[in-house]
Amino acid sequence: MTLALDRLRAETPGVANRIHLNNAGAALMPAPVVDAMTSYLRREAEIGGYEAAEESAARLDSVYDSLARLVGGARDEIALTENATVAWQMAFYALPFRPGDRILTTTAEYGANYVAFLQVAKRTGAVIEVIPDDADGVLDPAALEAMIDDRVRLIAINWIPTNGGLVNPAAAVGVVARRHGIPYLLDACQAVGQMPIDVEALGCDMLSATGRKFLRGPRGTGFLYVRRKLCLTLEPPMVDHFGAIWVDKDHYRLRDDARRFESWENNYAARLGLGVAADYALAVGIEAIRDRCQALAQRLRAGLRSLPRLRVFDLGPHPAAIVSFTVDGLEADEVRRRATEAGINLSISRPGSTLLDALARHLPILVRASPHYYNSEDEIDALLALLEKMH
Amino acid sequence: MTLALDRLRAETPGVANRIHLNNAGAALMPAPVVDAMTSYLRREAEIGGYEAAEESAARLDSVYDSLARLVGGARDEIALTENATVAWQMAFYALPFRPGDRILTTTAEYGANYVAFLQVAKRTGAVIEVIPDDADGVLDPAALEAMIDDRVRLIAINWIPTNGGLVNPAAAVGVVARRHGIPYLLDACQAVGQMPIDVEALGCDMLSATGRKFLRGPRGTGFLYVRRKLCLTLEPPMVDHFGAIWVDKDHYRLRDDARRFESWENNYAARLGLGVAADYALAVGIEAIRDRCQALAQRLRAGLRSLPRLRVFDLGPHPAAIVSFTVDGLEADEVRRRATEAGINLSISRPGSTLLDALARHLPILVRASPHYYNSEDEIDALLALLEKMH
Repeated sequence: MTLALDRLRAETPGVANRIHLNNAGAALMPAPVVDAMTSYLRREAEIGGYEAAEESAARLDSVYDSLARLVGGARDEIALTENATVAWQMAFYALPFRPGDRILTTTAEYGANYVAFLQVAKRTGAVIEVIPDDADGVLDPAALEAMIDDRVRLIAINWIPTNGGLVNPAAAVGVVARRHGIPYLLDACQAVGQMPIDVEALGCDMLSATGRKFLRGPRGTGFLYVRRKLCLTLEPPMVDHFGAIWVDKDHYRLRDDARRFESWENNYAARLGLGVAADYALAVGIEAIRDRCQALAQRLRAGLRSLPRLRVFDLGPHPAAIVSFTVDGLEADEVRRRATEAGINLSISRPGSTLLDALARHLPILVRASPHYYNSEDEIDALLALLEKMH
Repeated sequence: MTLALDRLRAETPGVANRIHLNNAGAALMPAPVVDAMTSYLRREAEIGGYEAAEESAARLDSVYDSLARLVGGARDEIALTENATVAWQMAFYALPFRPGDRILTTTAEYGANYVAFLQVAKRTGAVIEVIPDDADGVLDPAALEAMIDDRVRLIAINWIPTNGGLVNPAAAVGVVARRHGIPYLLDACQAVGQMPIDVEALGCDMLSATGRKFLRGPRGTGFLYVRRKLCLTLEPPMVDHFGAIWVDKDHYRLRDDARRFESWENNYAARLGLGVAADYALAVGIEAIRDRCQALAQRLRAGLRSLPRLRVFDLGPHPAAIVSFTVDGLEADEVRRRATEAGINLSISRPGSTLLDALARHLPILVRASPHYYNSEDEIDALLALLEKMH
């Protein structure tokens, strides 16, 4: 473990107040992220919003470099968006579908994405099909391979679902997608900031991510990676004069980079915060972050499994830092409420966020604990001690 | 004049640093707006992003009430969006068009909106037609009336264009729209915070607005008003599981309010700032704001017209607080640069932001000065003195 945990905790104001195990919801921002935003907002009030953006143009521009570095793409392949859902939507809704075209997805696909599939299926006649899982409940790349035919127009999956530690084999899916030349849209919302990301190794053509979760950035930030070659063929679902320059009365010309998916006006304070968060994660070291996240989550899972009335619902042989569980005889909301009273932040995962998985596994409402590298072993143990006494 | 100008200026940190005449770009935020955001961001870092939103749920919810009050609608007719363009897009792209359907707009329609017309025209076969102006260059409601037939599917105009003081007769357009039952989408970006807004009096079905301009709210905020009856018939162009609840495997159910146009994740600090800005404007008094904005703009126009080498380009008999001009022999960018050096914030209006108007009037690149109520007469006179010496 190479992390300077004391310093990292000292830079995290929230650890003084809460045991924050809701990093899969929104992580605690480190001080540099908050400071960048608050001082930028003050600067806007001091000299004007446009004038502050002009003054900070270089810093704002470098956010694209930071995110490109974070995912292994190029800066012209990055679009900044209001949130991960908008990032995902701008890519998904840009793809053309005809009746009978097949969209392949995964059992635990996120509700936000699935309702978009349903809307587009209704609009276009495309069909949605779910890739089978293996015996561990993990997306099975061999099963995906067996589904491929020339009507498959998109493979769209999430890497780490919202409702448990499952890690889908994103790179193995990329191998299948590349072999058959099928566009591959990867929802990396819970992976970014928690796992090393390399879009080349993953083989994805589009990747959507959020700032607020394991990346420790601000709420209301997200970004989209789109591979250059694909990007230039995509007409955004909606345009304004930033992404589509109004060149003459009857024509516009799309920008020749991923920013064709952006709109003109943005929250620049939040963008700066996102850039600082990405730089911060890169400086801490993503591999060390991953290792510590997994170790803390494993400590928590092992502890939960040793308690008689606790049930853990995470799938897969190498789960990530999302731990989903129930306490026999207590509603999930009640468990969360009592944890909050004890100063521990947890969250709740309801069936509607991953409905297919919830139906397939008959999932109840789950409690979700999601540690991050800045959590301490003592904090994990404090949650275990609380749960042991809970009835 | 009932404004307590000294207090209002004291609550505006920026007036100590700049003569800010770029309110049509982004106004100076008053201290309460900035304070609400910075303290909320710090709170997110202290206790967690979701936990802060839960703690401030009532305040966050009241933002809908504030905006409803501001425009005269009901809270269930308001959607909060990333910016005014997204607000406008969510409404516009939700409307169905068939080949030959007519979209009626105005000469000075904003570029962001016009490229969206072009995209939808290309996609659907709808046609875009421009409503003629009267002799003063103002949209002519009688000419609009004469254009109406049963193929007109939408009237979409801006109220106050970005490139000058023109005020289009938004309510007279509403009379025509209502008489014929045609959906009416009003871009009120430059009007909100500057003019009293009453969606009943305007007769509009959809109204889009921004936070950052005359409303003095944060960047990266906007909102959409959609009349309840129309709203419930509209399928948003893109959905997530917030606006479209995933009720069973193959179905979603749209929310029964305007928030069907929102997505789940948001910048809550910015939302709070927007709410504070709306409350602040209402407390100052929108009619008093309008009167003072017009008076300051008129002082500036009269001064400019008295200078030999200055040309004013504003149209219409009752222009708003956007003053567009050129200085003979100097590029607009150079005028702006020199003003910045003198501590005066101006902006530039390029042909591409209102291309049809720029072509029709052979407009050069314009300098734009946009005073707000918190500006002083001395500040206006300082700009005039600077321009008088400029050559």
